[in-house]
Amino acid sequence: MSAQDVAQAFVQHYYTTRDSNPAALASLYQPGSNLTFEGNMVTGGDAIAAKFQQIGQVKHNMKGMDVQPGQSNNCLIIFVTGSVQIGGDNPLHFCHFFQLVSTGPGAYYVHNEIFRLNYGL
Amino acid sequence: MSAQDVAQAFVQHYYTTRDSNPAALASLYQPGSNLTFEGNMVTGGDAIAAKFQQIGQVKHNMKGMDVQPGQSNNCLIIFVTGSVQIGGDNPLHFCHFFQLVSTGPGAYYVHNEIFRLNYGL
Repeated sequence: MSAQDVAQAFVQHYYTTRDSNPAALASLYQPGSNLTFEGNMVTGGDAIAAKFQQIGQVKHNMKGMDVQPGQSNNCLIIFVTGSVQIGGDNPLHFCHFFQLVSTGPGAYYVHNEIFRLNYGL
Repeated sequence: MSAQDVAQAFVQHYYTTRDSNPAALASLYQPGSNLTFEGNMVTGGDAIAAKFQQIGQVKHNMKGMDVQPGQSNNCLIIFVTGSVQIGGDNPLHFCHFFQLVSTGPGAYYVHNEIFRLNYGL
């Protein structure tokens, strides 16, 4: 699989699960994984899944995706833009960064994740 | 300097220079550095500086900045949101990702950079 294919498969799985059953995302992370959501950072799969539960119902609509190789061969950088509805409110722009790290052939975990809404000019 | 201090100093230098004299940014990059700007990737400091010249006059207004440690100790991830005017047009939301890699005490280069406008819901 190319980096683009890995990224495409990852984001499809991520957003489908994030919008329907976010607790199931915990297994994508390792104890040292960091999520920064709107400026607040939490560490580890359990804390990240708890953060998703706390945010409540969301619906993402992905628009753009960029992929770059990371600093070493086993790292993959994914950058997504789009819109999101939180709790049934009007859609807002979001941007979302992931760094996946390979743990073996075809296997990755999320080492870094940063999410920001983009509103108010 | 803390990671937060390094990031703050970097973005201040970056946006000030980007808005006034973008050719001077070439020295921040190495031959393997990648910039993806609105979906188009270029590699190396000269190609990146040429891309900035091609985009023309810009004015950034930074709003949020998140910092995380990268996959290894010498990597620093910076994620910026804000608004930008391109060629004097109305401001648009942007999001901007950098990965800095340390080359020695207090010295960094930009290994990864991704920029996207965020408009049209």
